Amino acid sequence: MLGFRIEATAGATRAGIMTTPHGAVETPAFMPVGTAGSVKGVTPQQLRGTGTQIILANTYHLQLRPTAQVVEELGGLHRFMGWEGPILTDSGGYQVFSLAEINRVTDEGVEFRSHIDGATLWLDARTAIDVQNKLGADIIMAFDECPPLPSPPHVVQTAVDRTIRWAKVCREVHQGADQALFGIVQGGLDVDLRQRCAAALVGIGFDGYAIGGLSVGETHEEMSAILPRITECLPADRPRYLMGVGMPGDILAAVQAGVDMLDCVLPTRNGRNSYAFTAGGPLRMRNEAHRLDDGPLEAGCDCETCQSYSRGYIRHLFNAAEMLGPTLTSIHNLRFYQRFMARIRALIREGRLPAIGEEYPIVALATSREGGSEENEWTR
Amino acid sequence: MLGFRIEATAGATRAGIMTTPHGAVETPAFMPVGTAGSVKGVTPQQLRGTGTQIILANTYHLQLRPTAQVVEELGGLHRFMGWEGPILTDSGGYQVFSLAEINRVTDEGVEFRSHIDGATLWLDARTAIDVQNKLGADIIMAFDECPPLPSPPHVVQTAVDRTIRWAKVCREVHQGADQALFGIVQGGLDVDLRQRCAAALVGIGFDGYAIGGLSVGETHEEMSAILPRITECLPADRPRYLMGVGMPGDILAAVQAGVDMLDCVLPTRNGRNSYAFTAGGPLRMRNEAHRLDDGPLEAGCDCETCQSYSRGYIRHLFNAAEMLGPTLTSIHNLRFYQRFMARIRALIREGRLPAIGEEYPIVALATSREGGSEENEWTR
Repeated sequence: MLGFRIEATAGATRAGIMTTPHGAVETPAFMPVGTAGSVKGVTPQQLRGTGTQIILANTYHLQLRPTAQVVEELGGLHRFMGWEGPILTDSGGYQVFSLAEINRVTDEGVEFRSHIDGATLWLDARTAIDVQNKLGADIIMAFDECPPLPSPPHVVQTAVDRTIRWAKVCREVHQGADQALFGIVQGGLDVDLRQRCAAALVGIGFDGYAIGGLSVGETHEEMSAILPRITECLPADRPRYLMGVGMPGDILAAVQAGVDMLDCVLPTRNGRNSYAFTAGGPLRMRNEAHRLDDGPLEAGCDCETCQSYSRGYIRHLFNAAEMLGPTLTSIHNLRFYQRFMARIRALIREGRLPAIGEEYPIVALATSREGGSEENEWTR
Repeated sequence: MLGFRIEATAGATRAGIMTTPHGAVETPAFMPVGTAGSVKGVTPQQLRGTGTQIILANTYHLQLRPTAQVVEELGGLHRFMGWEGPILTDSGGYQVFSLAEINRVTDEGVEFRSHIDGATLWLDARTAIDVQNKLGADIIMAFDECPPLPSPPHVVQTAVDRTIRWAKVCREVHQGADQALFGIVQGGLDVDLRQRCAAALVGIGFDGYAIGGLSVGETHEEMSAILPRITECLPADRPRYLMGVGMPGDILAAVQAGVDMLDCVLPTRNGRNSYAFTAGGPLRMRNEAHRLDDGPLEAGCDCETCQSYSRGYIRHLFNAAEMLGPTLTSIHNLRFYQRFMARIRALIREGRLPAIGEEYPIVALATSREGGSEENEWTR
């Protein structure tokens, strides 16, 4: 059973501790994404050095390659990827609907074609749980249908119906007491649908509740408006996880709505594309402006990258297509996110979270997001 | 002045200590290659963890991008790349002759076109020293002409004449007392030319002597045959550096001929291409055979990779095109090379270097090499 203790609150916002079989996690927590069993370009040791306490891995990618069976035979996901801390796996639903070519979706599940080799595959509630049981993460997700936004009302409604139906099946077939199971609230931007979905999932009973289907095309304002209407329907004593979010400003809005966990590929994806996060806003490290700059990516940052390398060197690494450019920038970005979260947690405990905007002007930059493909660049 | 103390000998073979402004180096020493100011895919911290004591950087690449002036303004090569240990830079000669499109070679220098942007550039003895002074390595090289093998006799002879002429200029213009200057012996497979070149360089007087123009197309036997004929002409009390070598069997042959330093891209280049070195021979980590293998790349290896990751995981990383595949395999390969060198040094001191073949059957695999392009795969 997943431990969760709230230690400070301010309105809907809370700070606490979540305990898993692989260790404790301070919340609100940011989870870097290790899509295929690796947080891209960063070793688990470097990842620990960024202050990361929990990571996410993608069931869809791992099931396609190397398959859950291989991961299980190689000792499970923790042993496989050399990360001894807590791990969360998603259900594969989001990736099936965003990456794969869908053949057909029925009330029973999804037939799709692998984006890697075109093979025809099937995923449903039972297989999603079976695969996640084999992977062995500390927290696993119920199988859900995640439509893009905007979608016609009947599409969102059908997705909610299926998500509830599949959540029941997942709850029934999941046996392992060591793996916490979260339900996923869908419903797009329709408050009634969201609240109906949340109530149904709470009725089934889960160890925690995820909010899916956001950061998939809507604006920051739309997301910020609906989030508190969802969290108010979720039990206060269970962790709440907003999936796939996001930019620092989105994270702040989510935390203010009572969210406890988030994940996003931005620190590593943007790091690979030469974008470095700083409290004042992003830097594009390929820029000529950094050519002779002997300063660190961010003044005052205690990360491995900022302690040893100049902006000028990192610019050179990107220009010379050296692997170390993405690696060092990803390390900084991950540390940036973890320092941001640590500051959020501290300010919650001090009862003055709104002050974060003065320390992190970047939170004002979160005005829109793009969901979907792994290949998106950061264009702001 | 470069310190060099020989502490054990066996025939031509020697083991000792070289001291530089940035620390001591046990010899015979293997130098990983940080072509453009980065040992590809590996951080300086990870590099230190492999037991590496000295690295090589390429003057040609750094002068093209970001230029020596930028490196100098960013604090010199040690600060620039975050490596506080000893560094050696080559003269750029080998890369000009192997990577660039040559416009014309005269007794004064070489006009060539950059392999990066096609710009017309000029390199001669003075500029090679000037650039290396700016980079600030502990050991720098005289500018040489390095023809491929086989080449017609008059080509090799002209290259020797120019190499001697340029070496004199380099010795005259190099001022920095903190940077040791090595001459480079050329002469192909012609013993008389090699010995004439060595004698001329010794007459000029250098802090150490490099042997260039090998590992550029000749066989292992040809290289092994000529090496002792060169080293016998070099002063015993100065370090000898065989450039661009190589496979473990080549390294052994060189050490047996009295070579003290070597460099090669093989551990990292092959690592990026999924080849892992082991004492018994190479493994291709993409192979299906490793799919369910929970063992380390090499049993008994103490490297970061072998301590934490299975062959099955590393195979998966390569199949999924994850950056960590090249990184983790490069770390292992570098540690393999450094453990191999440490064992060579220990056996020299014990007076039984030939026993290395029992511990490292891979030394028998060194039967041929390919020089030149950075893109060559390991095809054995």
